[in-house]
Amino acid sequence: MPLIEPRVLKGFRDFLPPQELERRNMIAKIEGTFRSFGFVPIDTPALEYAQVLLGKGGGETEKQVYRFTDQGGRDVALRFDLTVPFARFTAEHRSELFLPFKRYHIAKVWRGENTQRGRYREFTQCDFDIVGSDGAAADFEILFMMQKTLGILCGTGEKDLTIRLNHRGLFNRLLDSLGAGNKSVEILRQIDKLGKTGKDEVRKLLEDITGREQAGKILDFISLGDEGDFDRVLEKLKAAAGEGEDTRRLETLWKYIKDTGTEESFMLDPSITRGLDYYTGIVYESFLNKLPGIGSVCSGGRYDNLAGLYSKEKLCGVGASIGLDRLQAALDELWGTGRRPTYADAALACIEGWGPGKTQALAEQFRNRGISCEVFLEIRKPVQQFMAAEKKGIPWVIIPGDGVLTLRNIEGRKNNEAPDVEAAAALIMGAKQDRTTPATPYTKA
Amino acid sequence: MPLIEPRVLKGFRDFLPPQELERRNMIAKIEGTFRSFGFVPIDTPALEYAQVLLGKGGGETEKQVYRFTDQGGRDVALRFDLTVPFARFTAEHRSELFLPFKRYHIAKVWRGENTQRGRYREFTQCDFDIVGSDGAAADFEILFMMQKTLGILCGTGEKDLTIRLNHRGLFNRLLDSLGAGNKSVEILRQIDKLGKTGKDEVRKLLEDITGREQAGKILDFISLGDEGDFDRVLEKLKAAAGEGEDTRRLETLWKYIKDTGTEESFMLDPSITRGLDYYTGIVYESFLNKLPGIGSVCSGGRYDNLAGLYSKEKLCGVGASIGLDRLQAALDELWGTGRRPTYADAALACIEGWGPGKTQALAEQFRNRGISCEVFLEIRKPVQQFMAAEKKGIPWVIIPGDGVLTLRNIEGRKNNEAPDVEAAAALIMGAKQDRTTPATPYTKA
Repeated sequence: MPLIEPRVLKGFRDFLPPQELERRNMIAKIEGTFRSFGFVPIDTPALEYAQVLLGKGGGETEKQVYRFTDQGGRDVALRFDLTVPFARFTAEHRSELFLPFKRYHIAKVWRGENTQRGRYREFTQCDFDIVGSDGAAADFEILFMMQKTLGILCGTGEKDLTIRLNHRGLFNRLLDSLGAGNKSVEILRQIDKLGKTGKDEVRKLLEDITGREQAGKILDFISLGDEGDFDRVLEKLKAAAGEGEDTRRLETLWKYIKDTGTEESFMLDPSITRGLDYYTGIVYESFLNKLPGIGSVCSGGRYDNLAGLYSKEKLCGVGASIGLDRLQAALDELWGTGRRPTYADAALACIEGWGPGKTQALAEQFRNRGISCEVFLEIRKPVQQFMAAEKKGIPWVIIPGDGVLTLRNIEGRKNNEAPDVEAAAALIMGAKQDRTTPATPYTKA
Repeated sequence: MPLIEPRVLKGFRDFLPPQELERRNMIAKIEGTFRSFGFVPIDTPALEYAQVLLGKGGGETEKQVYRFTDQGGRDVALRFDLTVPFARFTAEHRSELFLPFKRYHIAKVWRGENTQRGRYREFTQCDFDIVGSDGAAADFEILFMMQKTLGILCGTGEKDLTIRLNHRGLFNRLLDSLGAGNKSVEILRQIDKLGKTGKDEVRKLLEDITGREQAGKILDFISLGDEGDFDRVLEKLKAAAGEGEDTRRLETLWKYIKDTGTEESFMLDPSITRGLDYYTGIVYESFLNKLPGIGSVCSGGRYDNLAGLYSKEKLCGVGASIGLDRLQAALDELWGTGRRPTYADAALACIEGWGPGKTQALAEQFRNRGISCEVFLEIRKPVQQFMAAEKKGIPWVIIPGDGVLTLRNIEGRKNNEAPDVEAAAALIMGAKQDRTTPATPYTKA
């Protein structure tokens, strides 16, 4: 039989151990933060009725969706985001949920996008929302969680992160005052392109919609955020569009931000509008200051009718989504790939006279002390076992012995002796805490 | 616009917070054990070329696969297990992997199975394998990891778990001695039904294949395990089929099992054959002693040509797979659903005079001490906030105050006072460690 070429589909990827370890570590940090806020996880099927997922129909999305007829003749599709399944979920399980409902959902989604734009057709989203509360407290909790989670993920502190905040109401009032309120969806979509295409291009597109004078006023307004300071920008926006519920909400949020001492992470930016007409309140995007070019790594906003397609009950909410793949790529760029996680704290050498049973029993004593410990499976010269550990980025090789354990420090190329497991474990744990140099990648160069 | 009915496809499920929390906790325990052995994670695409996944073609599997033509006209399919993608993965990335390669993969797979048999069309597999080592040390490591992982998951200790072990070579030699070696695939498939259909039914099926006398001998042979004691069963098997590499391998493994003191978890059972012709060495299934009826929760074996479809290089290996959904259902049955995990350690009450900013800043002080802390978002009477905590299974409500914190113990219906966060955190952590009663489920009854 001829061999089949082992290959994946265009736009799809394998994750080798170094990448997958890093992803799992990122997800563990994200989940840890979400859980510390009392958010709870849910999951939904990858495959759903196409009608349920595409209810609204039309648009760019529909063309990208993986849609087909299953064995039972049903019209089905792979989910293309986590928002639509969540809307369906809340409508279906409404009677089982307490409001406000604080949930997160970390899962893969699929879109047959044009891969030439450097996009993947399978990617991971991390969504978190508070549904059933319209207050500033809920808005703030999402913003605060974004700030905490991204800070922990990037390990850089709040100065390296900027969350750009705006309110849809403010912008809508400006358009109304210009008599352009009926064109808001179209205008929002153009302004959302600002980061990608630049101001001149957006000006042209806006002029086509509103005429030259109004386009100028809109661009002047959304440029008011360039000044930086939140209070001053807010004053200017009030001067331009007048006061309203939206400016009062922004004022309140700014107070809460100051109460938590997180001012350095936030900016008021009237150019942030988000393309989707789904949002009705605050909207936001977040950027890594050292990598502005990669765009927003976490975005979201407030909406007033989550599940309108499936239920008459109006459910408001506020939420955000982290693009894990983009963030991982950004952190790789920021730190280089040398920081790959070590995949075990120690390896137990395989030596004559110590069979796999005895060796595993010894390894268990280390594992029970929180030290991950690979057992080498084949008898080789010590130097070969040290080389294997080095290639895999394992910092220690333990050579078993009766009455004494020899600990080879791979990086330092030195042997240490320990009278028992307790002492050996203390040595390994101590060095682990001191360890600042990056581990060698697990895969071959 | 008429509403769309919010529903999922037959055989697919939503996971509500209590179930999803439990699943995530199970996966964390499984991963923690795998990582402690130095196993590393990989991931592969959900969607692959149909030819890559279905290379061998034919059979029961092919009918169940979700297969379709994508937007680019490619013949694609959703993965139906993690073994085939792993085989493709090792062939594709062979030059990047060190052997022996110890990997795990926890991910969803899809099969359009008949749901009347209580099966799901979307389910999670946890596979772990050692590839590139043919020794007993590798066999034993997989067995030992199974024993550890299932013991930790079930929290029941090794006495409640039985791993039934056999060797394909032994059975093949018996068939050869009966002159039925050429019918082995067919015979194995029938014997694999033993647990489901019973001995009488299997006897009939075997008689159709081999005739009455041989069927009797085969059944006599596979019944030799009924005696229990590993050594005695092994002696009887040797008497019936003679000694060979297979009996020596089983002897060696039994020694390693004794070296680690895990004898109580293992049995030698010649009726375990596994249906797949893929296996060539040891094979095994594992059972919860208190729930024998649910069948094996973790099975696997040794194979000698993992990636033969994609590569000329013969890669041997040994591995196992945990069926997470079946195991979760089993644990629910064993423990009841009352043991649902608490979804936060404490809630901070929302009271007049303490805005969301100050409250979140206070909550952070608890979170930084390892206490997950939900912030309630709306001002309500204390009794209403206590009720909300009770419904969600949150054991403590913290009422902020200047100079003193009041801690409401929900279960005991008592207030405690603490002078500062330090003292309050100590109280909550202390009670958490004492906590043995199950939490109220998060969802409404």
